[in-house]
Amino acid sequence: MARIVMKFGGTSVADLDRIRNVAARVKREVDAGNQVAVVVSAMAGATNQLVGWCEALSPLFDAREYDAVVATGEQVTAGLLAIALQSIGIEARSWAGWQIAVDTDGQHGKARINGIEGEVLIERLSRGQVPVVAGFQGIGPDNRITTLGRGGSDTSAVALAAALKADRCDIYTDVDGIYTTDPRIVPKARKLAKITYEEMLELASVGAKVLQTRSVELAMKERVRVQVLSSFSDAPGTMVVDEDEIVEQEIVAGIAYSRDEAKVTVRRVPDKPGIAAAIFVPLAEANINVDMIVQNVSEDGTTDMTFTVGKTDLAKAQATLEAVRGAIGYAEFSTDKDVAKISVVGVGMRSHAGVAGTMFKTLADRGINIQVISTSEIKVSVLIAAEYTELAVRALHGAYDLDAQ
Amino acid sequence: MARIVMKFGGTSVADLDRIRNVAARVKREVDAGNQVAVVVSAMAGATNQLVGWCEALSPLFDAREYDAVVATGEQVTAGLLAIALQSIGIEARSWAGWQIAVDTDGQHGKARINGIEGEVLIERLSRGQVPVVAGFQGIGPDNRITTLGRGGSDTSAVALAAALKADRCDIYTDVDGIYTTDPRIVPKARKLAKITYEEMLELASVGAKVLQTRSVELAMKERVRVQVLSSFSDAPGTMVVDEDEIVEQEIVAGIAYSRDEAKVTVRRVPDKPGIAAAIFVPLAEANINVDMIVQNVSEDGTTDMTFTVGKTDLAKAQATLEAVRGAIGYAEFSTDKDVAKISVVGVGMRSHAGVAGTMFKTLADRGINIQVISTSEIKVSVLIAAEYTELAVRALHGAYDLDAQ
Repeated sequence: MARIVMKFGGTSVADLDRIRNVAARVKREVDAGNQVAVVVSAMAGATNQLVGWCEALSPLFDAREYDAVVATGEQVTAGLLAIALQSIGIEARSWAGWQIAVDTDGQHGKARINGIEGEVLIERLSRGQVPVVAGFQGIGPDNRITTLGRGGSDTSAVALAAALKADRCDIYTDVDGIYTTDPRIVPKARKLAKITYEEMLELASVGAKVLQTRSVELAMKERVRVQVLSSFSDAPGTMVVDEDEIVEQEIVAGIAYSRDEAKVTVRRVPDKPGIAAAIFVPLAEANINVDMIVQNVSEDGTTDMTFTVGKTDLAKAQATLEAVRGAIGYAEFSTDKDVAKISVVGVGMRSHAGVAGTMFKTLADRGINIQVISTSEIKVSVLIAAEYTELAVRALHGAYDLDAQ
Repeated sequence: MARIVMKFGGTSVADLDRIRNVAARVKREVDAGNQVAVVVSAMAGATNQLVGWCEALSPLFDAREYDAVVATGEQVTAGLLAIALQSIGIEARSWAGWQIAVDTDGQHGKARINGIEGEVLIERLSRGQVPVVAGFQGIGPDNRITTLGRGGSDTSAVALAAALKADRCDIYTDVDGIYTTDPRIVPKARKLAKITYEEMLELASVGAKVLQTRSVELAMKERVRVQVLSSFSDAPGTMVVDEDEIVEQEIVAGIAYSRDEAKVTVRRVPDKPGIAAAIFVPLAEANINVDMIVQNVSEDGTTDMTFTVGKTDLAKAQATLEAVRGAIGYAEFSTDKDVAKISVVGVGMRSHAGVAGTMFKTLADRGINIQVISTSEIKVSVLIAAEYTELAVRALHGAYDLDAQ
């Protein structure tokens, strides 16, 4: 007997038939003698609709209200799945984040889980009941609903697995594992049987949308064994594991891309000490994540600063920059949403030189201009014009010998 | 300065433009110096969709899960309206039922409000903040979300008005007041400037869907001045008031109809003491409201029992009857959903004879067969085949001289 957290994403619960399918999968694990807790996302499309409404009413919406609105999607799925489970003889009950409670900090719209009170659910599990937990949400110190950011249900699932001391956290999604890149762009992409937490972390953070970044961080920290698999097939998935569990390590594990960022260029900033802080501290205070940052060499005592933010934060970033214009004294700023970030990821990079060089040459050979570069120990990312996304990903997949035979 | 509760129904918040329109109406009251709390329903169609999903997954769904699913509709509207209000400079925040809290009993799906803790909201009102309360919901003794039954947001609004000691409870809806009957059926229907609580109560209970029955009961008990008016026009509405506020009382105030009930006939029940209890106690224990009840005269020691239940309770009623078949010993039962209840209502009936006689003769003249009759002090109701609904309502409207000149 094992204790398992099963998490089902939006496409896995997109309609009533799929919710019934999920119920049948849960029943299979229960019938096998396992203790099962389930975490669900909103039905595919529901969250986008709710977010769209908030944005349409006010681009600078109150994140506390956004959370109250958007968290309903998961609450609906949890209730429906509980009904579906009961209808096939499985004892189940739904739990909203505030009921458990899933305690989070007060950063509405992108809250972090401080802890989950697992005792009540463990007691229910021991009685054979299946808790169906609304993912993506918790409750903040202000007693208001918080959400964890897009894809936050993965983090809910991993945090729950840690709180329940589960043997495994199975993340059911619409793909049957982690691939060397997006198979919709590169049909020759290969499924990985195993991937390290660190690679998964980099892939998640650069836009491979299979798992939310924070869920991988948390899994790594809490040593939760995560499996990514499809709710539509019985094929084995990809296990996310420690590096020492992988015997034959490739240099590059995968190529990721993201079209979720926008580029902001602030021109003719006075080039003096403290000017970067003058720009980025207000952005941080406005709770805006800044990703890539490039500062040009100085000319005439001024410089240009380029950085990227999430497209959803762009309006807020623009407002923030306008507000501090006097303090910074820049000439103008421009924004560009038509950009894509392409990343090459692999723990093997640590011991193999030339990975970045191969990337730059491959892109240059296709005539693709690199706008911004950033690197980490196991990753190289570049920002390019969005229209070259597929071309770049395909070319790099071939260049690193990742194409399936 | 007055303290006002404004309640907006589903059609008033059906889309973002209408939510903006509601925000503008709220702003008008705030700008006039009033303290305003708002209660909202789900966006039109949202509740039906959620209910439909629950029913499709399991006709005998768990009412606790149904509540968790269905209550989300109002939570969405409350958050969206708070955003819309903020965007036009009104300080506002949304409140889910469990946050206030709206304490209810544990009858999931049709809970009753035990009390509302008004202190926090009164404090917010005094600071100029507009609380936007998700209607239709509360929290039960089991710490789970409860809902108040269809139309429950009206009751939420009246209960809130009582808790906040509001001067008025304005119920905004898609009609601009209470009419002598449904104007969609009888174009000559007249709007009433005033109506008594008792008449409104009978009209609500027999299917005039403008206000939920319990909201009128509560308004009468708590002496809350209720106004029914349209969110789409500035026409004066109908005030629901004490009988002594109305100078010239008509004999009949209005004609109502309902197609929400189904008829159940239990045949060849042993005619002995306690048999009615044997049928209706289990139905009550299953939380099914039974409305009209008729028992035929006995024949061969058995009798037929006919009664009506809400169509949504019909499946549960059938299951309940099957379960007690052995204990009751009836021969068979049949059900009929194609029925309508037509009611004539007016406090003037108390002092005027012949109202029922006029009703029966009018229907007989049109060849409409009466299946069941029930009466109260100020109401006569009959059950007829649904296909005659419009004909019956029009004929009665004319018979009691209610047609507008």
